[in-house]
Amino acid sequence: MYIFRWLTILFLFVALHAQSQHTESYKYPPSEVVTIHSKVLNEDRKVYVHCPKVDSTDLNKRFPVLYLMDADNHFELLAQYVDYLSRPDVLAMPKMIVVGIANTNRTRDLTPTSSITNYMGKPDSSSYKLSGGNESFLQFIEKELIPMIDKNYKTEPYKIFAGHSFGGISALNCMLTYPDMFNAYIAVSPSLWWDNEYLLKLTDEKLKEGSVLNKKLFYSNGNEGGNNSFFHKGLLKLDSTIANKKLKRLDYVYKHYSTETHMTEPVVAYFDALRFIFKDWGK
Amino acid sequence: MYIFRWLTILFLFVALHAQSQHTESYKYPPSEVVTIHSKVLNEDRKVYVHCPKVDSTDLNKRFPVLYLMDADNHFELLAQYVDYLSRPDVLAMPKMIVVGIANTNRTRDLTPTSSITNYMGKPDSSSYKLSGGNESFLQFIEKELIPMIDKNYKTEPYKIFAGHSFGGISALNCMLTYPDMFNAYIAVSPSLWWDNEYLLKLTDEKLKEGSVLNKKLFYSNGNEGGNNSFFHKGLLKLDSTIANKKLKRLDYVYKHYSTETHMTEPVVAYFDALRFIFKDWGK
Repeated sequence: MYIFRWLTILFLFVALHAQSQHTESYKYPPSEVVTIHSKVLNEDRKVYVHCPKVDSTDLNKRFPVLYLMDADNHFELLAQYVDYLSRPDVLAMPKMIVVGIANTNRTRDLTPTSSITNYMGKPDSSSYKLSGGNESFLQFIEKELIPMIDKNYKTEPYKIFAGHSFGGISALNCMLTYPDMFNAYIAVSPSLWWDNEYLLKLTDEKLKEGSVLNKKLFYSNGNEGGNNSFFHKGLLKLDSTIANKKLKRLDYVYKHYSTETHMTEPVVAYFDALRFIFKDWGK
Repeated sequence: MYIFRWLTILFLFVALHAQSQHTESYKYPPSEVVTIHSKVLNEDRKVYVHCPKVDSTDLNKRFPVLYLMDADNHFELLAQYVDYLSRPDVLAMPKMIVVGIANTNRTRDLTPTSSITNYMGKPDSSSYKLSGGNESFLQFIEKELIPMIDKNYKTEPYKIFAGHSFGGISALNCMLTYPDMFNAYIAVSPSLWWDNEYLLKLTDEKLKEGSVLNKKLFYSNGNEGGNNSFFHKGLLKLDSTIANKKLKRLDYVYKHYSTETHMTEPVVAYFDALRFIFKDWGK
């Protein structure tokens, strides 16, 4: 009977060897979750920070920073884009730090005015009763978040502010009310319908014809109900308002993604926005 | 003097409290590195495997699989796209397993014939002397990799094969020589110039006019030296060859990204390819 036992052992050995296989964890380029207490907002806030891989031959190198809203939707995507597009064999943009701001109360933080009217023009107080906190949110970014990032990471002054939907109107609101806070703004499908087109009116009011606005600006919409949708009509109005202002040194582009939905659009729009902002980089 | 000491301590306490800040590691959705020994290739191979998050209410759910070449370039990108596009609030494609195949000898594995001629038509034996191993590489995938993945992960039969550049000609070569191995093929900027347009000749030879090829096929090129480049002319020839064959049940699309480079193009092309392959999904 011993012979069978040995044959079994031999068989197992051969079988295991034939399938020799080893599994370990895949190592993503690391990112950090930083929790800070905001006095402005009177709450703790989480931000996700992704830094370029350290180059041992240039330890003092500093990097521009991309500040991104709705971090739980798009932080990994933007971190991936920045890492890939700045690779030495791609070289389409500089290495950047990506700071993703996670939401606590999204509607409160990312709406510029208090309004309970939804995009259909109907009241919806349960969704929107806490709206209108964008001013405080921008104060948090200016007074607390940016100083914390500048203190703890190797930043250079160039900064981008990026958002989608309510995050899109926050990016535009920031450009109009705090034009010195960022160098470039990305507004993917901004909810221009908000509060009876508040942002469109503010755009017309704040941007003086022929004035200087030394910024880069990307805005876009997808197919959010066809060409008669509130989104598409709002973006067309924004685009014509900006064109009519004949601003000096504003480098802007409008993209309409007619085959993308409100939620698939950010994937291609954020890529195009980075390509647009850095189109002359390295030239 | 004690009063100064106490004031210093008090100051430090207040300063620390004001900046109260906590940092931890960001947790990416986990992926695995699996090392298997390939008898076909007579070497160990690493593959990166990313699985959808387990749904506790549907533990037996099985998933289609995307097999990707050049994993060190594009695995994280594809894993990110698949995770995001299959989210319940995006729902543009099914959850999928992504298997990225890391290279050992890229030129050997991803070229269909032995040739030392570079894309300028000049001999380059140092770069290409080991070329022509694509047949063995496809055998490795069919006989060893796919069975290992099917054995260890919750796969369903639907499979996509995706590659860029030499990976693009490998995807096309696979479709032509082993049409049953995959259900859909993605060829981003395939190097159709390889070996005096070997793949274009093979396409014309293997695809019989009016025959049935029940597949989805995406191919593209960027701006790789303008409209007279070998890449662009090759893709136009491929596109007209396929059109002339009037194949039944082949759903294909050609995209030309005139503002993208050979290395930026995959970011948008892989997104568009997934959108194309799953355009009717869920409808």
